[in-house]
Amino acid sequence: MPSEASLPLTATVRLPRVRGLRVRGQILTRAAELASIDGLDQVSIGRLATAMQMSKSGLYAYFTSKEDLQLATIDCAWRVFEEHVLQPGDDAVEALLERWISYYEREIFPGGCLFVTAGMEFANRDGPVHDALAAALERQVAALEGAIARAGAAGDDDAASLSATDAGQVAFELHAVLTAGNQRFRISRDAAAFAHARAAIERLLA
Amino acid sequence: MPSEASLPLTATVRLPRVRGLRVRGQILTRAAELASIDGLDQVSIGRLATAMQMSKSGLYAYFTSKEDLQLATIDCAWRVFEEHVLQPGDDAVEALLERWISYYEREIFPGGCLFVTAGMEFANRDGPVHDALAAALERQVAALEGAIARAGAAGDDDAASLSATDAGQVAFELHAVLTAGNQRFRISRDAAAFAHARAAIERLLA
Repeated sequence: MPSEASLPLTATVRLPRVRGLRVRGQILTRAAELASIDGLDQVSIGRLATAMQMSKSGLYAYFTSKEDLQLATIDCAWRVFEEHVLQPGDDAVEALLERWISYYEREIFPGGCLFVTAGMEFANRDGPVHDALAAALERQVAALEGAIARAGAAGDDDAASLSATDAGQVAFELHAVLTAGNQRFRISRDAAAFAHARAAIERLLA
Repeated sequence: MPSEASLPLTATVRLPRVRGLRVRGQILTRAAELASIDGLDQVSIGRLATAMQMSKSGLYAYFTSKEDLQLATIDCAWRVFEEHVLQPGDDAVEALLERWISYYEREIFPGGCLFVTAGMEFANRDGPVHDALAAALERQVAALEGAIARAGAAGDDDAASLSATDAGQVAFELHAVLTAGNQRFRISRDAAAFAHARAAIERLLA
Protein backbone atom coordinates (compact mmCIF):
# COMPACT_ATOMS: atom_id res chain seq x y z
CA MET A 1 0.00 0.00 0.00
CA PRO A 2 1.48 3.39 -0.88
CA SER A 3 1.60 5.84 1.98
CA GLU A 4 0.11 9.30 1.53
CA ALA A 5 3.64 10.62 1.30
CA SER A 6 4.10 8.79 -2.02
CA LEU A 7 1.27 10.67 -3.79
CA PRO A 8 3.34 13.65 -4.91
CA LEU A 9 5.86 11.23 -6.40
CA THR A 10 3.09 9.42 -8.37
CA ALA A 11 1.88 12.79 -9.59
CA THR A 12 5.42 13.69 -10.66
CA VAL A 13 5.79 10.42 -12.55
CA ARG A 14 2.51 11.01 -14.41
CA LEU A 15 3.19 14.62 -15.27
CA PRO A 16 5.39 14.11 -18.34
CA ARG A 17 2.69 12.03 -20.04
CA VAL A 18 -0.01 14.59 -19.26
CA ARG A 19 2.29 17.39 -20.40
CA GLY A 20 3.17 15.35 -23.49
CA LEU A 21 -0.49 15.03 -24.46
CA ARG A 22 -1.05 18.73 -23.87
CA VAL A 23 1.94 19.74 -26.02
CA ARG A 24 0.87 17.28 -28.73
CA GLY A 25 -2.58 18.87 -28.69
CA GLN A 26 -1.08 22.35 -28.98
CA ILE A 27 1.09 21.30 -31.91
CA LEU A 28 -1.91 19.77 -33.71
CA THR A 29 -4.10 22.81 -33.11
CA ARG A 30 -1.37 24.96 -34.66
CA ALA A 31 -0.99 22.43 -37.50
CA ALA A 32 -4.74 22.52 -38.26
CA GLU A 33 -4.68 26.34 -38.31
CA LEU A 34 -1.70 26.32 -40.65
CA ALA A 35 -3.35 23.71 -42.90
CA SER A 36 -6.52 25.79 -43.11
CA ILE A 37 -4.59 28.93 -44.13
CA ASP A 38 -1.73 27.63 -46.28
CA GLY A 39 -2.79 24.08 -47.19
CA LEU A 40 -2.13 20.69 -45.61
CA ASP A 41 1.02 20.23 -47.64
CA GLN A 42 2.59 23.11 -45.72
CA VAL A 43 2.19 21.09 -42.51
CA SER A 44 5.69 19.68 -42.10
CA ILE A 45 7.91 18.90 -39.12
CA GLY A 46 10.16 21.85 -40.05
CA ARG A 47 7.39 24.45 -40.38
CA LEU A 48 5.64 23.29 -37.22
CA ALA A 49 8.92 23.39 -35.30
CA THR A 50 9.37 27.03 -36.36
CA ALA A 51 5.73 27.90 -35.58
CA MET A 52 5.94 26.28 -32.13
CA GLN A 53 9.46 27.58 -31.42
CA MET A 54 10.60 24.00 -30.88
CA SER A 55 13.51 22.08 -32.39
CA LYS A 56 12.83 19.62 -35.20
CA SER A 57 14.09 16.79 -32.98
CA GLY A 58 11.64 18.00 -30.32
CA LEU A 59 8.83 17.60 -32.86
CA TYR A 60 10.04 14.10 -33.79
CA ALA A 61 9.34 13.07 -30.19
CA TYR A 62 5.64 13.48 -31.04
CA PHE A 63 5.42 12.61 -34.76
CA THR A 64 7.56 10.16 -36.66
CA SER A 65 7.19 11.79 -40.11
CA LYS A 66 5.46 14.51 -42.09
CA GLU A 67 2.78 11.99 -43.07
CA ASP A 68 2.24 10.98 -39.44
CA LEU A 69 1.87 14.66 -38.54
CA GLN A 70 -0.56 15.29 -41.42
CA LEU A 71 -2.72 12.30 -40.46
CA ALA A 72 -2.83 13.47 -36.82
CA THR A 73 -3.76 16.98 -38.06
CA ILE A 74 -6.72 15.54 -40.01
CA ASP A 75 -7.85 13.64 -36.87
CA CYS A 76 -7.56 16.81 -34.81
CA ALA A 77 -9.55 18.84 -37.36
CA TRP A 78 -12.20 16.12 -37.45
CA ARG A 79 -12.60 16.23 -33.65
CA VAL A 80 -13.06 20.01 -33.86
CA PHE A 81 -15.69 19.55 -36.58
CA GLU A 82 -17.47 16.87 -34.50
CA GLU A 83 -17.43 19.04 -31.40
CA HIS A 84 -18.91 22.10 -33.16
CA VAL A 85 -21.21 20.48 -35.69
CA LEU A 86 -22.06 16.83 -35.09
CA GLN A 87 -22.25 16.38 -31.32
CA PRO A 88 -24.16 19.28 -29.77
CA GLY A 89 -27.67 18.45 -28.45
CA ASP A 90 -30.35 19.16 -31.04
CA ASP A 91 -30.56 16.28 -33.51
CA ALA A 92 -32.97 17.96 -35.97
CA VAL A 93 -31.68 18.29 -39.55
CA GLU A 94 -32.27 22.07 -39.52
CA ALA A 95 -30.27 22.50 -36.29
CA LEU A 96 -27.40 20.39 -37.63
CA LEU A 97 -27.27 22.41 -40.86
CA GLU A 98 -27.36 25.72 -39.00
CA ARG A 99 -24.47 24.60 -36.74
CA TRP A 100 -22.57 23.57 -39.91
CA ILE A 101 -23.00 26.95 -41.64
CA SER A 102 -22.24 28.78 -38.41
CA TYR A 103 -19.03 26.74 -38.06
CA TYR A 104 -17.94 28.07 -41.48
CA GLU A 105 -19.22 31.56 -40.76
CA ARG A 106 -17.47 31.88 -37.37
CA GLU A 107 -14.24 30.69 -39.02
CA ILE A 108 -13.55 28.06 -36.39
CA PHE A 109 -10.47 27.35 -38.50
CA PRO A 110 -8.91 30.71 -39.37
CA GLY A 111 -8.51 29.84 -43.06
CA GLY A 112 -11.78 27.93 -43.43
CA CYS A 113 -12.76 24.27 -43.09
CA LEU A 114 -9.98 22.12 -44.45
CA PHE A 115 -11.62 18.85 -45.45
CA VAL A 116 -12.71 19.62 -49.01
CA THR A 117 -9.81 22.03 -49.59
CA ALA A 118 -7.17 19.56 -48.43
CA GLY A 119 -9.09 16.80 -50.21
CA MET A 120 -8.64 18.67 -53.49
CA GLU A 121 -5.01 19.39 -52.62
CA PHE A 122 -4.40 15.64 -52.28
CA ALA A 123 -6.95 14.49 -54.90
CA ASN A 124 -4.27 13.50 -57.38
CA ARG A 125 -1.93 11.77 -54.92
CA ASP A 126 -2.15 8.26 -53.56
CA GLY A 127 -1.51 7.26 -49.98
CA PRO A 128 -2.84 7.42 -46.42
CA VAL A 129 -3.28 11.23 -46.35
CA HIS A 130 -5.50 11.18 -49.45
CA ASP A 131 -7.43 8.22 -48.04
CA ALA A 132 -7.98 9.91 -44.67
CA LEU A 133 -9.32 13.04 -46.40
CA ALA A 134 -11.60 11.02 -48.68
CA ALA A 135 -12.90 9.14 -45.62
CA ALA A 136 -13.56 12.43 -43.77
CA LEU A 137 -15.53 13.74 -46.75
CA GLU A 138 -17.62 10.55 -46.89
CA ARG A 139 -18.23 10.76 -43.11
CA GLN A 140 -19.51 14.32 -43.54
CA VAL A 141 -21.99 13.23 -46.23
CA ALA A 142 -22.96 10.14 -44.19
CA ALA A 143 -23.68 12.38 -41.17
CA LEU A 144 -26.15 14.36 -43.30
CA GLU A 145 -27.72 11.20 -44.67
CA GLY A 146 -28.02 9.75 -41.14
CA ALA A 147 -29.67 12.92 -39.82
CA ILE A 148 -32.24 12.84 -42.63
CA ALA A 149 -33.00 9.15 -42.05
CA ARG A 150 -33.28 9.59 -38.25
CA ALA A 151 -35.62 12.55 -38.62
CA GLY A 152 -37.77 10.57 -41.07
CA ALA A 153 -37.96 7.62 -38.65
CA ALA A 154 -38.85 10.01 -35.80
CA GLY A 155 -41.96 11.12 -37.68
CA ASP A 156 -40.80 14.44 -39.17
CA ASP A 157 -43.00 14.58 -42.30
CA ASP A 158 -40.65 16.76 -44.34
CA ALA A 159 -37.70 14.56 -43.47
CA ALA A 160 -39.71 11.38 -44.10
CA SER A 161 -40.53 12.52 -47.63
CA LEU A 162 -36.89 13.58 -48.18
CA SER A 163 -35.59 10.27 -46.91
CA ALA A 164 -38.15 8.39 -49.03
CA THR A 165 -37.03 10.15 -52.23
CA ASP A 166 -33.33 9.43 -51.72
CA ALA A 167 -31.47 10.41 -48.58
CA GLY A 168 -28.15 9.93 -50.40
CA GLN A 169 -29.13 12.39 -53.13
CA VAL A 170 -30.39 14.98 -50.64
CA ALA A 171 -27.23 14.56 -48.56
CA PHE A 172 -25.12 15.16 -51.70
CA GLU A 173 -27.03 18.37 -52.43
CA LEU A 174 -26.92 19.64 -48.85
CA HIS A 175 -23.18 19.00 -48.69
CA ALA A 176 -22.73 20.73 -52.07
CA VAL A 177 -24.55 23.83 -50.85
CA LEU A 178 -22.74 23.91 -47.48
CA THR A 179 -19.27 23.60 -48.97
CA ALA A 180 -20.09 26.02 -51.81
CA GLY A 181 -21.13 28.58 -49.17
CA ASN A 182 -17.77 28.14 -47.46
CA GLN A 183 -15.78 28.22 -50.71
CA ARG A 184 -17.48 31.28 -52.19
CA PHE A 185 -17.18 33.10 -48.87
CA ARG A 186 -13.47 32.31 -48.67
CA ILE A 187 -12.66 33.14 -52.29
CA SER A 188 -14.99 36.12 -52.83
CA ARG A 189 -14.86 37.32 -49.19
CA ASP A 190 -18.56 38.11 -49.37
CA ALA A 191 -20.85 36.81 -46.62
CA ALA A 192 -23.74 36.80 -49.14
CA ALA A 193 -22.53 33.25 -49.86
CA PHE A 194 -23.98 32.13 -46.50
CA ALA A 195 -27.33 33.78 -47.27
CA HIS A 196 -27.39 31.82 -50.55
CA ALA A 197 -26.49 28.59 -48.72
CA ARG A 198 -29.26 29.14 -46.13
CA ALA A 199 -31.85 29.88 -48.85
CA ALA A 200 -30.78 26.73 -50.72
CA ILE A 201 -31.13 24.61 -47.57
CA GLU A 202 -34.56 26.05 -46.85
CA ARG A 203 -35.69 25.12 -50.36
CA LEU A 204 -34.10 21.66 -50.15
CA LEU A 205 -35.89 20.87 -46.86
CA ALA A 206 -39.23 22.37 -47.96
CA MET B 1 5.58 49.99 -102.30
CA PRO B 2 7.21 46.64 -101.46
CA SER B 3 7.98 44.49 -104.48
CA GLU B 4 6.80 40.87 -104.57
CA ALA B 5 10.38 39.81 -103.93
CA SER B 6 10.17 41.33 -100.45
CA LEU B 7 7.38 38.96 -99.33
CA PRO B 8 9.62 36.06 -98.25
CA LEU B 9 11.64 38.53 -96.18
CA THR B 10 8.47 39.81 -94.48
CA ALA B 11 7.49 36.21 -93.75
CA THR B 12 10.92 35.55 -92.26
CA VAL B 13 10.66 38.63 -90.11
CA ARG B 14 7.24 37.54 -88.83
CA LEU B 15 8.17 33.94 -88.11
CA PRO B 16 9.83 34.47 -84.70
CA ARG B 17 6.67 36.18 -83.41
CA VAL B 18 4.43 33.33 -84.63
CA ARG B 19 6.83 30.77 -83.17
CA GLY B 20 6.98 32.82 -79.96
CA LEU B 21 3.20 32.74 -79.59
CA ARG B 22 3.15 29.01 -80.27
CA VAL B 23 5.83 28.29 -77.66
CA ARG B 24 4.08 30.58 -75.16
CA GLY B 25 0.84 28.64 -75.76
CA GLN B 26 2.64 25.32 -75.22
CA ILE B 27 4.18 26.56 -71.98
CA LEU B 28 0.79 27.73 -70.70
CA THR B 29 -0.96 24.49 -71.63
CA ARG B 30 1.70 22.61 -69.64
CA ALA B 31 1.33 25.14 -66.80
CA ALA B 32 -2.46 24.66 -66.66
CA GLU B 33 -2.02 20.86 -66.57
CA LEU B 34 0.54 21.15 -63.78
CA ALA B 35 -1.73 23.55 -61.84
CA SER B 36 -4.65 21.15 -62.14
CA ILE B 37 -2.61 18.23 -60.79
CA ASP B 38 -0.31 19.79 -58.19
CA GLY B 39 -1.85 23.20 -57.49
CA LEU B 40 -1.31 26.65 -58.97
CA ASP B 41 1.40 27.43 -56.45
CA GLN B 42 3.56 24.74 -58.06
CA VAL B 43 3.49 26.74 -61.30
CA SER B 44 6.84 28.52 -61.14
CA ILE B 45 9.43 29.55 -63.72
CA GLY B 46 11.77 26.83 -62.40
CA ARG B 47 9.29 23.96 -62.54
CA LEU B 48 7.98 24.98 -65.95
CA ALA B 49 11.51 25.24 -67.30
CA THR B 50 12.16 21.66 -66.15
CA ALA B 51 8.81 20.42 -67.52
CA MET B 52 9.43 22.11 -70.89
CA GLN B 53 13.14 21.21 -71.02
CA MET B 54 13.96 24.90 -71.38
CA SER B 55 16.36 27.07 -69.43
CA LYS B 56 14.97 29.40 -66.78
CA SER B 57 16.28 32.37 -68.76
CA GLY B 58 14.43 30.96 -71.79
CA LEU B 59 11.22 31.04 -69.74
CA TYR B 60 11.90 34.62 -68.65
CA ALA B 61 11.70 35.62 -72.32
CA TYR B 62 7.96 34.82 -72.09
CA PHE B 63 7.05 35.61 -68.47
CA THR B 64 8.59 38.24 -66.24
CA SER B 65 7.82 36.55 -62.90
CA LYS B 66 6.07 33.62 -61.23
CA GLU B 67 3.03 35.86 -60.72
CA ASP B 68 2.99 36.84 -64.40
CA LEU B 69 3.17 33.14 -65.33
CA GLN B 70 0.37 32.23 -62.88
CA LEU B 71 -1.90 35.01 -64.22
CA ALA B 72 -1.28 33.86 -67.80
CA THR B 73 -2.04 30.27 -66.72
CA ILE B 74 -5.41 31.36 -65.29
CA ASP B 75 -6.19 33.16 -68.59
CA CYS B 76 -5.24 30.07 -70.57
CA ALA B 77 -7.40 27.82 -68.36
CA TRP B 78 -10.31 30.24 -68.73
CA ARG B 79 -10.06 30.12 -72.52
CA VAL B 80 -10.16 26.32 -72.39
CA PHE B 81 -13.23 26.48 -70.14
CA GLU B 82 -14.89 28.98 -72.50
CA GLU B 83 -14.13 26.85 -75.53
CA HIS B 84 -15.56 23.64 -74.03
CA VAL B 85 -18.41 24.98 -71.93
CA LEU B 86 -19.52 28.54 -72.69
CA GLN B 87 -19.13 28.99 -76.44
CA PRO B 88 -20.44 25.92 -78.27
CA GLY B 89 -23.73 26.39 -80.13
CA ASP B 90 -26.73 25.42 -78.04
CA ASP B 91 -27.64 28.24 -75.66
CA ALA B 92 -30.24 26.28 -73.63
CA VAL B 93 -29.52 26.06 -69.89
CA GLU B 94 -29.71 22.25 -69.98
CA ALA B 95 -27.18 22.05 -72.83
CA LEU B 96 -24.79 24.43 -71.05
CA LEU B 97 -25.00 22.39 -67.82
CA GLU B 98 -24.45 19.11 -69.65
CA ARG B 99 -21.35 20.56 -71.39
CA TRP B 100 -20.12 21.73 -67.98
CA ILE B 101 -20.47 18.31 -66.31
CA SER B 102 -19.01 16.61 -69.36
CA TYR B 103 -16.02 18.96 -69.18
CA TYR B 104 -15.37 17.72 -65.61
CA GLU B 105 -16.13 14.12 -66.51
CA ARG B 106 -13.84 14.01 -69.55
CA GLU B 107 -11.05 15.53 -67.39
CA ILE B 108 -10.20 18.23 -69.89
CA PHE B 109 -7.60 19.22 -67.31
CA PRO B 110 -5.88 16.03 -66.17
CA GLY B 111 -6.17 16.91 -62.47
CA GLY B 112 -9.62 18.49 -62.65
CA CYS B 113 -10.92 22.01 -63.20
CA LEU B 114 -8.65 24.42 -61.40
CA PHE B 115 -10.76 27.51 -60.72
CA VAL B 116 -12.37 26.60 -57.39
CA THR B 117 -9.38 24.49 -56.32
CA ALA B 118 -6.85 27.23 -57.05
CA GLY B 119 -9.32 29.76 -55.63
CA MET B 120 -9.24 27.91 -52.30
CA GLU B 121 -5.45 27.59 -52.56
CA PHE B 122 -5.18 31.39 -52.82
CA ALA B 123 -8.23 32.23 -50.66
CA ASN B 124 -6.12 33.49 -47.78
CA ARG B 125 -3.62 35.46 -49.83
CA ASP B 126 -3.95 38.96 -51.24
CA GLY B 127 -2.82 40.03 -54.69
CA PRO B 128 -3.52 39.77 -58.40
CA VAL B 129 -3.56 35.94 -58.51
CA HIS B 130 -6.24 35.72 -55.83
CA ASP B 131 -8.20 38.49 -57.56
CA ALA B 132 -8.02 36.78 -60.98
CA LEU B 133 -9.29 33.52 -59.47
CA ALA B 134 -12.11 35.26 -57.60
CA ALA B 135 -13.07 37.03 -60.85
CA ALA B 136 -13.08 33.71 -62.77
CA LEU B 137 -15.37 32.17 -60.14
CA GLU B 138 -17.76 35.12 -60.37
CA ARG B 139 -17.70 34.90 -64.19
CA GLN B 140 -18.68 31.21 -63.96
CA VAL B 141 -21.66 32.02 -61.74
CA ALA B 142 -22.60 35.01 -63.93
CA ALA B 143 -22.58 32.74 -67.01
CA LEU B 144 -25.14 30.49 -65.31
CA GLU B 145 -27.23 33.47 -64.25
CA GLY B 146 -27.10 34.91 -67.77
CA ALA B 147 -28.18 31.61 -69.35
CA ILE B 148 -31.18 31.39 -66.99
CA ALA B 149 -32.19 34.99 -67.72
CA ARG B 150 -31.79 34.56 -71.52
CA ALA B 151 -33.86 31.37 -71.52
CA GLY B 152 -36.56 33.10 -69.48
CA ALA B 153 -36.64 36.05 -71.92
CA ALA B 154 -36.82 33.59 -74.85
CA GLY B 155 -40.08 32.17 -73.49
CA ASP B 156 -38.84 28.97 -71.81
CA ASP B 157 -41.51 28.60 -69.09
CA ASP B 158 -39.32 26.64 -66.66
CA ALA B 159 -36.50 29.13 -67.07
CA ALA B 160 -38.90 32.08 -66.81
CA SER B 161 -40.17 30.84 -63.46
CA LEU B 162 -36.59 30.14 -62.30
CA SER B 163 -35.45 33.57 -63.37
CA ALA B 164 -38.50 35.13 -61.69
CA THR B 165 -37.73 33.44 -58.35
CA ASP B 166 -34.11 34.58 -58.25
CA ALA B 167 -31.65 33.83 -61.02
CA GLY B 168 -28.75 34.64 -58.67
CA GLN B 169 -29.91 32.06 -56.13
CA VAL B 170 -30.47 29.38 -58.77
CA ALA B 171 -27.05 30.14 -60.30
CA PHE B 172 -25.45 29.74 -56.84
CA GLU B 173 -27.11 26.34 -56.42
CA LEU B 174 -26.29 25.12 -59.92
CA HIS B 175 -22.65 26.15 -59.47
CA ALA B 176 -22.59 24.44 -56.03
CA VAL B 177 -23.85 21.18 -57.52
CA LEU B 178 -21.50 21.31 -60.54
CA THR B 179 -18.37 21.96 -58.48
CA ALA B 180 -19.41 19.44 -55.80
CA GLY B 181 -19.73 16.82 -58.55
CA ASN B 182 -16.19 17.62 -59.68
CA GLN B 183 -14.77 17.71 -56.15
CA ARG B 184 -16.37 14.48 -54.95
CA PHE B 185 -15.34 12.73 -58.16
CA ARG B 186 -11.74 13.89 -57.74
CA ILE B 187 -11.46 13.12 -54.01
CA SER B 188 -13.53 9.90 -53.86
CA ARG B 189 -12.67 8.77 -57.41
CA ASP B 190 -16.25 7.59 -57.85
CA ALA B 191 -18.17 8.67 -60.97
CA ALA B 192 -21.43 8.37 -58.96
CA ALA B 193 -20.73 12.03 -58.07
CA PHE B 194 -21.71 13.02 -61.64
CA ALA B 195 -24.96 11.03 -61.43
CA HIS B 196 -25.74 12.94 -58.21
CA ALA B 197 -24.90 16.25 -59.91
CA ARG B 198 -27.14 15.45 -62.91
CA ALA B 199 -30.04 14.43 -60.66
CA ALA B 200 -29.64 17.65 -58.66
CA ILE B 201 -29.67 19.75 -61.84
CA GLU B 202 -32.78 17.98 -63.11
CA ARG B 203 -34.57 18.74 -59.84
CA LEU B 204 -33.33 22.36 -59.83
CA LEU B 205 -34.61 22.98 -63.35
CA ALA B 206 -37.93 21.14 -62.82
